[in-house]
Amino acid sequence: MKIYVVGIGPGGEGYITPVAREAIEKSDVVVGYTVYVDLIKNLTGDKETKTTAMKQEVERCRMALEECLKGKDVAFVCSGDAGVYGMAGIMCEVAEDYPDVDIEVIPGITAACSGGAVLGAPLIHDFAVISLSDLLTPWEMIEKRISLAAEGDFVICLYNPKSKKRVTHLDRAVELIEKHRAGDTPCGYVKNIGRDGETGVICTLKELSGNDDIDMFTTVFIGNSSTKVINGKLVTPRGYKGV
Amino acid sequence: MKIYVVGIGPGGEGYITPVAREAIEKSDVVVGYTVYVDLIKNLTGDKETKTTAMKQEVERCRMALEECLKGKDVAFVCSGDAGVYGMAGIMCEVAEDYPDVDIEVIPGITAACSGGAVLGAPLIHDFAVISLSDLLTPWEMIEKRISLAAEGDFVICLYNPKSKKRVTHLDRAVELIEKHRAGDTPCGYVKNIGRDGETGVICTLKELSGNDDIDMFTTVFIGNSSTKVINGKLVTPRGYKGV
Repeated sequence: MKIYVVGIGPGGEGYITPVAREAIEKSDVVVGYTVYVDLIKNLTGDKETKTTAMKQEVERCRMALEECLKGKDVAFVCSGDAGVYGMAGIMCEVAEDYPDVDIEVIPGITAACSGGAVLGAPLIHDFAVISLSDLLTPWEMIEKRISLAAEGDFVICLYNPKSKKRVTHLDRAVELIEKHRAGDTPCGYVKNIGRDGETGVICTLKELSGNDDIDMFTTVFIGNSSTKVINGKLVTPRGYKGV
Repeated sequence: MKIYVVGIGPGGEGYITPVAREAIEKSDVVVGYTVYVDLIKNLTGDKETKTTAMKQEVERCRMALEECLKGKDVAFVCSGDAGVYGMAGIMCEVAEDYPDVDIEVIPGITAACSGGAVLGAPLIHDFAVISLSDLLTPWEMIEKRISLAAEGDFVICLYNPKSKKRVTHLDRAVELIEKHRAGDTPCGYVKNIGRDGETGVICTLKELSGNDDIDMFTTVFIGNSSTKVINGKLVTPRGYKGV
């Protein structure tokens, strides 16, 4: 009776670790958002799968718990890392009253790392990861974090920069960051990481504003005061005292 | 003529992605810190390897560049993710004058993710990653970042919390964080992630201070104001508006 909360990385099978693959293979049932379960069809084979549509996160956790309570081992898959804005936390919360349910979190490659690799090496020094989604977090708190991260000269990685409904949040973020960082600070963004149509773009901080190319499948990277572009790659030096 | 800068994850082969494995297998020579090259002995087989001792990062990059300039494909391996305090950045800097050298960064699982999974789900919400090593960064800058991250209620993940010479930096970090966060805030640390002797410990913020169990092979996690312990796991809820 075990639930593996499995991070499958950015997309393709090439980013799924052997440990994650094994957890999926040895489980009786695979639970997840339809799109992610589809991505690993080769691994699940004839195995029973249970899926829900987007945004039904709590529902999906209850589904995993229910299967587990029937005595099955469950692989609960999510994209990226299960622990970075992933399902590992809600799963623990939903299963709080069932201490006998054994939950094991299997890490995966999160978009900060996979997207960073596409652009070069933006996260070599201290960084902050912030989601611009204000669905469950007050926008004022998000603004505060953006400002403090900018003030601290952290490299900033933004998840969920836009959605169909949230179109101006990134522009506001750029505005706040520009109070502490030059408009020509090297930045970048990556779309469809590890999937068909993967694209990495290097640009400046001010070019992130009003940028229609950035959508909900994009991860945004904002350099610190030392970040530079070397041979087409976004690179943050590892220190402030030189190599 | 290509250099793959490959993140091999926390340790065992089970955390090396197929993409990373393939890059190592198709390279002519493997370059890296002796300990990491040893970790992947099964993968390198009879392949030529070139290693250096600890701290000779620039030397190692030069070695990789030199092999590449001889016309070889090089797998330059590092632990965790190649882009998080990893070698991807220095490699680009060292090869700056050789724009024809093709550098591809292959992401791996960084200690924030692999360690977070051992403890449960501490990084479900916005987080900051900070290294306490002041070898290349002025300590005042590190202190500033710790304070701003604490003020912003970021979950904080500390890399390099201690070394043989740096024994009091973590105590000072806790002192700074306590100005913004309660002493009984749930925290945790993980030693030897993904390797023999892996240990995860959940404790409070104040218990991180003067803690002799924490060493240079430890990653430290400091919860935000919502982080809690659920059935022995460190869990940060995904939002401030409840599940």
